[in-house]
Amino acid sequence: MATTISKDQPVVTLINTFTVAPERQEELVNLLVEATENVMKHLPGFVSANIHRGLDGRHVANYAQWRSREAFEAMLRNPEAQAHMGPIAAMAQFDPVLYVVADDITVVS
Amino acid sequence: MATTISKDQPVVTLINTFTVAPERQEELVNLLVEATENVMKHLPGFVSANIHRGLDGRHVANYAQWRSREAFEAMLRNPEAQAHMGPIAAMAQFDPVLYVVADDITVVS
Repeated sequence: MATTISKDQPVVTLINTFTVAPERQEELVNLLVEATENVMKHLPGFVSANIHRGLDGRHVANYAQWRSREAFEAMLRNPEAQAHMGPIAAMAQFDPVLYVVADDITVVS
Repeated sequence: MATTISKDQPVVTLINTFTVAPERQEELVNLLVEATENVMKHLPGFVSANIHRGLDGRHVANYAQWRSREAFEAMLRNPEAQAHMGPIAAMAQFDPVLYVVADDITVVS
């Protein structure tokens, strides 16, 4: 099931952008996928995560949807989630921000 | 038509995160929506844009899909697009990065 972005979705969106050394970009992608598969997706309120590889080699982004801000914040306090985030925080700078979708614009192709 | 995120989509993804004074956040959201509706969506290769309002009041993000890196770069050179981006650049710091989707993880709710 693919992720859908729409201002009508009942979710909050985490956009977390990571800056990483190019030689470790792939490792960071793999750690984020593992953390999502092993921990995050089993927590209450998880909806989706999409791990993105920057074409510049130096960035990775996680576009993740949670049912509510409370569910996201509970994840941050979860010891298992924290254990998975430790090695990630050690290898990359990151800047997590929570959003809601203000407007969605698409073209029919 | 809602935006779909999937690693099987033939798109490149721009994630552009803006930092803005809280009292101008709504104005920035409106300028990005206008630029998208009036210019971007009519350019070749535009697929979708989703404008996000940060819950912290200080961020705005644009999650936009283009058919190719070449289509995105042609937009950057378009004088009409540049005219719309001028006022936006004057009121916010921003950090545009192009990505591909490395992995997509969702739960069936």
